[in-house]
Amino acid sequence: MIRSISESPLYPIVNPKSIAFFGASNTFMRMGSIMLSSMQALGYEGKIIPIHPKEKVVRGLAAYPSILDVPEIPDLAIIVLPTEIVCQTLDDCGKKGIRHAIVVSGGFREAGPEGAALQKELEAIARRHGIRFLGPNCLGVANLHLKLNPTPIKADCKAGFVGLASQSGSFITQMFNYLHRHGMGFSAALSVGNEASIDIVDCLEYLGACPHTKVITLYIEGINRGSKFVEIAKAITPRKPIVALYVGGSEAGKQAGLSHTGSLSGPNEIYDGIFKQCGIIRAKTLTELFDYALALGTLPRPGGNRIVIQTHSGGPGATAADACSRVGLKLSRLSPETVKKLKPLIPKTASTANPVDMTFSKNHADDYFNIPNILLSDSETDMLLAYFVSPGIFLERILGEMGVEENSINSEMDKLIGDFAQKFVSLTQAHPDKPIVGFTYRSLQEKMVRTLLDCGVPVYQDPERAARSLAAVQEYYERRGKM
Amino acid sequence: MIRSISESPLYPIVNPKSIAFFGASNTFMRMGSIMLSSMQALGYEGKIIPIHPKEKVVRGLAAYPSILDVPEIPDLAIIVLPTEIVCQTLDDCGKKGIRHAIVVSGGFREAGPEGAALQKELEAIARRHGIRFLGPNCLGVANLHLKLNPTPIKADCKAGFVGLASQSGSFITQMFNYLHRHGMGFSAALSVGNEASIDIVDCLEYLGACPHTKVITLYIEGINRGSKFVEIAKAITPRKPIVALYVGGSEAGKQAGLSHTGSLSGPNEIYDGIFKQCGIIRAKTLTELFDYALALGTLPRPGGNRIVIQTHSGGPGATAADACSRVGLKLSRLSPETVKKLKPLIPKTASTANPVDMTFSKNHADDYFNIPNILLSDSETDMLLAYFVSPGIFLERILGEMGVEENSINSEMDKLIGDFAQKFVSLTQAHPDKPIVGFTYRSLQEKMVRTLLDCGVPVYQDPERAARSLAAVQEYYERRGKM
Repeated sequence: MIRSISESPLYPIVNPKSIAFFGASNTFMRMGSIMLSSMQALGYEGKIIPIHPKEKVVRGLAAYPSILDVPEIPDLAIIVLPTEIVCQTLDDCGKKGIRHAIVVSGGFREAGPEGAALQKELEAIARRHGIRFLGPNCLGVANLHLKLNPTPIKADCKAGFVGLASQSGSFITQMFNYLHRHGMGFSAALSVGNEASIDIVDCLEYLGACPHTKVITLYIEGINRGSKFVEIAKAITPRKPIVALYVGGSEAGKQAGLSHTGSLSGPNEIYDGIFKQCGIIRAKTLTELFDYALALGTLPRPGGNRIVIQTHSGGPGATAADACSRVGLKLSRLSPETVKKLKPLIPKTASTANPVDMTFSKNHADDYFNIPNILLSDSETDMLLAYFVSPGIFLERILGEMGVEENSINSEMDKLIGDFAQKFVSLTQAHPDKPIVGFTYRSLQEKMVRTLLDCGVPVYQDPERAARSLAAVQEYYERRGKM
Repeated sequence: MIRSISESPLYPIVNPKSIAFFGASNTFMRMGSIMLSSMQALGYEGKIIPIHPKEKVVRGLAAYPSILDVPEIPDLAIIVLPTEIVCQTLDDCGKKGIRHAIVVSGGFREAGPEGAALQKELEAIARRHGIRFLGPNCLGVANLHLKLNPTPIKADCKAGFVGLASQSGSFITQMFNYLHRHGMGFSAALSVGNEASIDIVDCLEYLGACPHTKVITLYIEGINRGSKFVEIAKAITPRKPIVALYVGGSEAGKQAGLSHTGSLSGPNEIYDGIFKQCGIIRAKTLTELFDYALALGTLPRPGGNRIVIQTHSGGPGATAADACSRVGLKLSRLSPETVKKLKPLIPKTASTANPVDMTFSKNHADDYFNIPNILLSDSETDMLLAYFVSPGIFLERILGEMGVEENSINSEMDKLIGDFAQKFVSLTQAHPDKPIVGFTYRSLQEKMVRTLLDCGVPVYQDPERAARSLAAVQEYYERRGKM
């Protein structure tokens, strides 16, 4: 286990100050050109040195015909070239003194026996020069804290707390927007490809040491260094949660993984055992992977499994209650004092049983602080799940009826809703040891919920997803307690 | 079982030509006023007659102090009044000759013994006058084909093919926007409340006969007329699918339902048995309820369970393969002819195993017709699951690089993406007997996927949801085959 992040072979790959870029040109419709343009678009502040046999300037950057002509030694080489010339290029990099690389090019082990032989050759070259590299057949890294995104897809998201190590490149790039929509961002995302030199275990170790990473997510098709994985994971989970999606357990997933990265998979049961032993939470789908990451990255350790549900509608309340009980959460019993404090705030047809159904509430503002504050103050309750309808759908009409001019309704609404959201967010400071989670059937991008997400309050699109995520948090701390 | 929809007691409630409305006034912040304003906003074309003790004009409509003063006999009374005066009002309606009502007001059986007694009185009044009514404690109906929405929430959706009968009012109103975002709309949505006169079984029967309804969804906290439910459901499922979400099976769900509508629930196993017997597909969450409805309402009967997965990325492909195999779908084996036809269209590093991973495709347009058309033409394949990245994220950059002016990039992109989407939609005509489904991790509202949804091609936000929905379609036709 590394003692400091700078000991990781990944450190210069994730945090390079200068990059030699092979495979970009002024012809845009090439993978390399697209990747370079992403890097420029996000505003990477380090130095980029394109290498191109003919072009002297590539996308506005001074280019060199060969790496051997470059006056300095770049921290990192990114290689996006045709398979045939990758080995020669890496050899040149080695001769130049470069010790870290990302090999994006495919056509190696995943492509059959000929490709496997070529990969062996690549590995030998790297060993000879002491080069550590990601890939081949990968999409490299994204380090949003450094504005580094040499992947084909624009990073339309902020830097955040989710670390990802993935045996699929697309789960790096295609998740930028997904994470943003769901209230998260990557700290660092690492695509390992065929793992010829650096594998997912190295990535796990790096993310364990990465200070920006609050929760580690793994996409796994098969782990080769099993015992090292267990050792590293065991060292991490007592201080940082790990969530893993493993797809190699089914025959179909195994076949798909084999033609994808040529990795070795094993039966679901074996991986279940490994994960349990290490304190890793297993996700069955990508949705679960990031749902759990959101909860684990934002919520405090719950004191127990007793939950109170707050709703304005019976159906969502009952559905949430059903979902909670299916994952082992227990509906808390409200104390008589709590019920007494609630009564003046809600209509007499409302329910003060749990789920607390406020129905048509007397004062909109109470929903977002006073009522949940009473519920969270009850010592019989460990966590809160609140249902959110968009207050906008009512407010828009109310403001219109009140005679507010049409062109100022939106700004008035935004202000009101922003205030409501901030009130709700302040509950997390008032009750720092109780997880607070929301669910809604509206779009997550509407003002109220978007504000909550931006302020670190998880809101899910189904009570089931919220309940499972809370259960994942419970499970993480339970396993951690036993380690 | 009714022979024609007009025999249903619900017919005049869902399709009224004139409505007496009790409880709306010129004070907007009242439930009744908000409900009337929704009805006006959607543009209901029938006649609305507000009844108000003092106001002569309510929201621009001529009002009467008592129903007895109204010159005509309205088809329907909607009552949104304080609990205390509901019985008297229904009695007046009966005297006037009105035979159908929606009682929105709460405070009856769900509110304890006193409320239960009041409900008995209400029932007796209705019986005496021969009145059939929805409620009390409900949100009534929405019939978007008639622009009828007397619920508190604006109907921001189109009329569609999903019929809903719900023991929760919020699942009517709060799903307008949800259904629209996911590519659906209600044909008719019915909130039954305490089911004093008309119950969920009557609603099921109505929806079975409703020509706009292609798939029936049920939200159930407890069924009282069990054997009638079975009889009606059995008569419907051989020609129209029914999906049911039952939440009363867990202790928490049961308690929540009890304080919500006071309904009787039973163990999960009993409901599982009933549903199976009737050919009803059970959903565990609201997300599943409408995911299945989308698939059942749009897809043809599959010839078998052999699926082909098309992707541009290994990870989403492997995840989809894993999800399919978990729900019992079988990855089809591509014939040598199919592989031969594919080869010229995809790069040599691409995979022609199943999942078919096109990687970085040679010609964008092939992804949306030529490649899936080859896959669907294989006689060893019964259905297609395709992964969609937003082509916009590439196209925007490509068009920019090509020198297209910034202010015309969006319209150019929209046109291109619209064409791609239409090509993909045309596969459903080319292969009318093979289900075609998509999944994406992007927002459903981006042009490509939104167009597919608008044209009746289901696209889900996770391969798991797509796979489960396909399995639900399989299961429906299997059960139907055995009935």
